[in-house]
Amino acid sequence: MGDPLVKKYFLKLVPPSEEDPAADLERVIRGLAEACPEGFPKGFDVPLSVAAKIPAVLRESRFEITVTVSFSDATRIIDAEPGDTSSRSFGLSIDLGTTNVVGVLLDLAEGRQLGELSEVNPQIAHGEDILNRIHYCLIKGNLEELQRQAAGCINSIALRLAEAAGIGVDDIYCVSVSGNTTMAHLFLGLDPYNICRAPYVPVANHFGFFRAADLGLDINPEGAAYVLPNVGSYVGGDVLAGVLVSGMHERSEVSLMVDVGTNAEIVIGNSDWLLVCAGAAGPALEGGVVKFGMRAMPGAIERIKINPETLRPEYSVIGGQGMKPKGMCGSALIDLLAELFLKGLIDGRGKFVEPHKPGVRETDGLREYVVVPAEDAYAGEDIVFTEADIDNLVRTKAAMYTALNVVTRELGMSFHDLAEFNLAGTFGAYIAADKAVAIGMVPDIELSKYRLLGNSSLKGACKALLSREAVNEVERIASRITYKELNVSTDFMSEFRAAMFLPHTDASLFPNIV
Amino acid sequence: MGDPLVKKYFLKLVPPSEEDPAADLERVIRGLAEACPEGFPKGFDVPLSVAAKIPAVLRESRFEITVTVSFSDATRIIDAEPGDTSSRSFGLSIDLGTTNVVGVLLDLAEGRQLGELSEVNPQIAHGEDILNRIHYCLIKGNLEELQRQAAGCINSIALRLAEAAGIGVDDIYCVSVSGNTTMAHLFLGLDPYNICRAPYVPVANHFGFFRAADLGLDINPEGAAYVLPNVGSYVGGDVLAGVLVSGMHERSEVSLMVDVGTNAEIVIGNSDWLLVCAGAAGPALEGGVVKFGMRAMPGAIERIKINPETLRPEYSVIGGQGMKPKGMCGSALIDLLAELFLKGLIDGRGKFVEPHKPGVRETDGLREYVVVPAEDAYAGEDIVFTEADIDNLVRTKAAMYTALNVVTRELGMSFHDLAEFNLAGTFGAYIAADKAVAIGMVPDIELSKYRLLGNSSLKGACKALLSREAVNEVERIASRITYKELNVSTDFMSEFRAAMFLPHTDASLFPNIV
Repeated sequence: MGDPLVKKYFLKLVPPSEEDPAADLERVIRGLAEACPEGFPKGFDVPLSVAAKIPAVLRESRFEITVTVSFSDATRIIDAEPGDTSSRSFGLSIDLGTTNVVGVLLDLAEGRQLGELSEVNPQIAHGEDILNRIHYCLIKGNLEELQRQAAGCINSIALRLAEAAGIGVDDIYCVSVSGNTTMAHLFLGLDPYNICRAPYVPVANHFGFFRAADLGLDINPEGAAYVLPNVGSYVGGDVLAGVLVSGMHERSEVSLMVDVGTNAEIVIGNSDWLLVCAGAAGPALEGGVVKFGMRAMPGAIERIKINPETLRPEYSVIGGQGMKPKGMCGSALIDLLAELFLKGLIDGRGKFVEPHKPGVRETDGLREYVVVPAEDAYAGEDIVFTEADIDNLVRTKAAMYTALNVVTRELGMSFHDLAEFNLAGTFGAYIAADKAVAIGMVPDIELSKYRLLGNSSLKGACKALLSREAVNEVERIASRITYKELNVSTDFMSEFRAAMFLPHTDASLFPNIV
Repeated sequence: MGDPLVKKYFLKLVPPSEEDPAADLERVIRGLAEACPEGFPKGFDVPLSVAAKIPAVLRESRFEITVTVSFSDATRIIDAEPGDTSSRSFGLSIDLGTTNVVGVLLDLAEGRQLGELSEVNPQIAHGEDILNRIHYCLIKGNLEELQRQAAGCINSIALRLAEAAGIGVDDIYCVSVSGNTTMAHLFLGLDPYNICRAPYVPVANHFGFFRAADLGLDINPEGAAYVLPNVGSYVGGDVLAGVLVSGMHERSEVSLMVDVGTNAEIVIGNSDWLLVCAGAAGPALEGGVVKFGMRAMPGAIERIKINPETLRPEYSVIGGQGMKPKGMCGSALIDLLAELFLKGLIDGRGKFVEPHKPGVRETDGLREYVVVPAEDAYAGEDIVFTEADIDNLVRTKAAMYTALNVVTRELGMSFHDLAEFNLAGTFGAYIAADKAVAIGMVPDIELSKYRLLGNSSLKGACKALLSREAVNEVERIASRITYKELNVSTDFMSEFRAAMFLPHTDASLFPNIV
């Protein structure tokens, strides 16, 4: 059953006698050593609160007790209960996103997922993006407020998941948290000030384990919290979790992973070496830049096809059938751009072809495609996709393609040398690889090499909770990964301009599209 | 300068740059590794409160900071201050006695003692002896009260010593505490209930390190507290501290140590083996049993000689010249019994010889020796030493001698095989070895083999604070020492009766006295 961070042991101990007057704690530790054939690491750390209750727990249960052991920085006995409670051992994994906080409740004894829940990060009241929150912390006391908000959000998720699963929050013994560098700092109450200022220095990269209560988490009083490490200011635990989930760090062939979020972090490497660089790729996918762009939440269109006969869009909305659309999330924007191009409504420069095809119109001198007419839209106004939107999206895809190209070329490699191409992060989870290829955002390689990792930040946090070895792995990944600054030279700019075409000015790069 | 539990390092760090954008914490840890040629153990534990203040401390001091490292269960950075404060590193050693709590303030940078102070243990309000306090804990909430009282007493001593030395309590980074098994349990808030009930089981034997603040100690917020281990219910950290101070655990020759307190714990052994047994020897020395017996505190007579001409006593009083005597402490009682015997005022059976010598009188049919006439005494009444007192004292000395004899004989040894005979504990510190030999309390061996260890509980606590190796030593002593029940057989009782004579019914055992 693996090696979860927390494990319970039911012990039937022999009561003390004149022949065996060992101290209570020594009796328990002896019992643990016998219960575990593979043997325990030498030395147990026992918090006072647990040591203090052990005598009573032993005697009220005739020395048949369940002991909870946390394998964190030390091997620690974090609970003792009368009788056999060994099946009640739970953990919570958290993807601490800038916008959304997602939690998964895990049964650590069974290695099974019991529920998943998402809440909006309450810190959003103090800034939509990271930079605003860092600035908010300039005023004394605000950092502490953001810390409490992060902990409070996790507590709310823990409580709701525990209630749904019919367990108590006290039965949750460990929390693992994955997020970007700034989110990790805010959660731990560490000043993020220098993260966004040259030379971009975080307070710490490796965080390790904490007593959950010290962070304001309402789980078991001696429960542990693990925060995934980061590598400098740009590469957070969420990205490292993606590497962990992809498994690229264990393979001899070279693979690539793009974490498509606000930025696009690119990791490339294998079991011998790992390189990471961060490009500014994502904003157009996040809403705010594209007129009807929005985050992936109920009411967002997530998938779009254009009917080849009518040239009218067919779409699906997050939240299901009855839901009227409010806008389009990143995956829908990529779908739409690809479909407009593939179905001949726009040309390679991203301009609507003349004469206008059905659904295309000009409003106030600006050409746009009507995705949803007012009567079908949530807000009662047309949802449209303008030429300006297309322009922004093309810039984004061009930036990402150029970054991918520069990185692989500087390593003396071609895209075709890659064994796998992993898409991770908020957008990576939903992007249709064939559409991303069609617009020239990612290279035209065998589609079977593309892998959608889904919410790899959350999956990595779950992996860590279920396996001490995974914790060691992600810490090792953080130690061995090298950060490389993207070289924004004149070459880069001319390549970027060449990529501002659908799929690319050099059509030979996309033989399957053109 | 040894290896104190806490050490400060002044670091001149290079500020971050584009070439070296390491995280703040990593910069500090790198600096520490460079500052310490012998190298640090891998991995530093950094409490959040310290990590959180490091960025500001670094920048307000242009990256020249002093870091405090605690070498406890883990290597932990427990403080960071701007500038060079490396000379301000202090620790507090505590002998947590049932009656008195004694503290020593140590300069850890210099390895120098700055002050010593004693306070009455405030727990005494809930029972003079250990048994009363254990019973007091039967009522809910009382254990917590005794815990707070112990911590409060240590805080008071810390504050007074710090004020006298012109330092702040925040400059105290570590406290070491030595006491008997029950006192250690009460200080840690661990239920002592099973200590005094068969089969006499403590909650724990090895306690190790704690965050001082978690115990209610007001020293540096991240300061550490170390509690010396015990071996079962009878052998506390105070006794193990005595072994540590004696050094008998390192010698190839066999030595013996008696800790003369309420009980008399006897330790015998060498670098290969260590044995400990506890006999009930001490009560007559503690006051309460002897009419004018009292604890060693101001007003107690501590030394007595009988003038061979006048047969009148000459004495010294704790507290100095002007102090009128209130009674006699243990060392004075032993002196007096020996002098009465050596000067021929009493016979081998402990009876005043007929006709009475000067100073001896009979009051209400009970014979007694007047030590201090009423006009010279604090309470304005005669301080006397009665035949009943003598009887009690003879029982005590007989019990101790018999225990010593049984233990060595069962090991197939003679007293003359012992390389050293150490006297430790509250009374051991003051006893005059020649007088103790004269009454047959301890064997008639070369006087040069006797060593007075003084307050070895306190000295052991100091040693631990000044040396990590000493901490390892005392933990090893606790692990390797074997507890042996004294065999109270018919033999023991007949030997005990034979020892109820001054110095012994078998005069050949005391050739230098008789």
